[in-house]
Amino acid sequence: MIKDKFIECHERIKPFIHNTPVIKSELLNKLIGAKIYFKCDNFQKMGAFKMRGATNAIMQLSNSEKIKGVVTHSSGNFAQALSLGAKSLNVPAYIVMPESATEVKKQAVKNYKGILFECKSTLRDREIKANEIVKEKGARFIHPSNDLNVILGQGTACKELLDKQPDLDFVFVPVGGGGLIAGSALAAKYFGKNCKVIGGEPFEVDDAYRSLKSGKIETNLTTNTIADGLKTQLGDINFPIIKKHVEKIIRVTENEIISSLRLIWERLKIVCEPSCAVALAALVREKQNFKNKKIGIIISGGNVDLSKLPF
Amino acid sequence: MIKDKFIECHERIKPFIHNTPVIKSELLNKLIGAKIYFKCDNFQKMGAFKMRGATNAIMQLSNSEKIKGVVTHSSGNFAQALSLGAKSLNVPAYIVMPESATEVKKQAVKNYKGILFECKSTLRDREIKANEIVKEKGARFIHPSNDLNVILGQGTACKELLDKQPDLDFVFVPVGGGGLIAGSALAAKYFGKNCKVIGGEPFEVDDAYRSLKSGKIETNLTTNTIADGLKTQLGDINFPIIKKHVEKIIRVTENEIISSLRLIWERLKIVCEPSCAVALAALVREKQNFKNKKIGIIISGGNVDLSKLPF
Repeated sequence: MIKDKFIECHERIKPFIHNTPVIKSELLNKLIGAKIYFKCDNFQKMGAFKMRGATNAIMQLSNSEKIKGVVTHSSGNFAQALSLGAKSLNVPAYIVMPESATEVKKQAVKNYKGILFECKSTLRDREIKANEIVKEKGARFIHPSNDLNVILGQGTACKELLDKQPDLDFVFVPVGGGGLIAGSALAAKYFGKNCKVIGGEPFEVDDAYRSLKSGKIETNLTTNTIADGLKTQLGDINFPIIKKHVEKIIRVTENEIISSLRLIWERLKIVCEPSCAVALAALVREKQNFKNKKIGIIISGGNVDLSKLPF
Repeated sequence: MIKDKFIECHERIKPFIHNTPVIKSELLNKLIGAKIYFKCDNFQKMGAFKMRGATNAIMQLSNSEKIKGVVTHSSGNFAQALSLGAKSLNVPAYIVMPESATEVKKQAVKNYKGILFECKSTLRDREIKANEIVKEKGARFIHPSNDLNVILGQGTACKELLDKQPDLDFVFVPVGGGGLIAGSALAAKYFGKNCKVIGGEPFEVDDAYRSLKSGKIETNLTTNTIADGLKTQLGDINFPIIKKHVEKIIRVTENEIISSLRLIWERLKIVCEPSCAVALAALVREKQNFKNKKIGIIISGGNVDLSKLPF
């Protein structure tokens, strides 16, 4: 039944998203000793996989809900995704962003006609502001990662990768709020052939790793990582999926992230966010366990502030 | 007859090169007011279009010449191209590079099994060293841009672009040694439908612009540009082709190059060399003359030293 829902979701959003390219590098394959297929959602509309889940969630609303609009809080890409998805579907989008978000991301929300509300950086401040807007406008709150429609939408990146390369042994996915990895794990289950999903997570924000150990949702006490897309925490809808279907989570250091980011930029010649490099860094860290395997890696987004590169 | 040679050249090198993707950006189209098709030879083998011409030139040698090997001098990409092309064809490659070339490029030559000889930066020093090797090893000198086999090979990038998008009105190409633009101009003549080729050149190294004005090959007195692939000068084989078939050359400032480079990285999410941005910068500078036209841009290479970015 989830499988049918998944297929319906993919058909529904296809006119509004790109089926992004899958690229390879002989040099990286040699370096790591595996066959790696990079699914490039940095080339997705608005520059990240989040376009998929946002579009699916908006399309599932009734007509009267669509008129009142949608609201979310996001540190970046989901804000842009909901803005652009809503714009394509003629729905108003109210976006709560922390003041500390990069200028590039704030400006992008405005370019996509999202109506921007800035607030303090804490999760609590963001939630309060979003609730105010829900009450005032009657708009529907869409969570960036803890929503089944969003999860299925995000999973279509992995589904497209498996459609093109059905014999993958593993898919590596960065873990932030948990939407992408939960959707990918469901895609691997229903559309792969014994394909296992592995998460990559910075040591600095290893809430998902600790949550899998303890069996309950853990939080991060610090968020001191370059992978700014991965600071958010798991939710009660995606965590059970992750617990059941994700093989394991590999943690990586900040230096490992930067060095994998450099590999991607230099060797694949693509611009991607530090968060994407976390998945490759996880593979590099434990490469001896994946010798000669066929491995997919989700390149989750490409919205980078070029003034703040770590090189 | 050149048309037949061109088709033969393309067939000959096809097994050794990638037919690289063509990408678009709705945002850039809107910004510039034209329909732009970017031919991404930053995704070419070894990271630049020069793989095409080098491969064609080596394949045209006799068996006895192949055994003795090939030699060239190059500030970067052609050195890598000849090394990798020669490696694929089991031919020794002797590479003369200026000491000042980036570490990334020197290391890449060694990775591709090129035999590296370093020398001072002047053209004269490079020629003397290359001549020594020709005498000593009996190797065949292959010029990076002033050689008809190289020119035809480089032109296959534009030919592939026109195969995919036959109705282009213009193709914009960066001008360095003149091989790419001469090959592109021939491709546009034989495979386009009234498609005109326009060069982009930095004001700082505007030898080609001045050569077209004066009717004879001019040289650069300074080479103070970020577009390090464009410092070389035209030759007696490519200049007549450029004079006859290139529509015009548009010069751009260093700031215009950097701002177009940023547009490509931020909007197309690809890593490319500053030289590529010169072609886009030329279009941006005179965009009012190209309203609603269909325009190809050759993204010539992606071998960048990430430690030395201008952002």
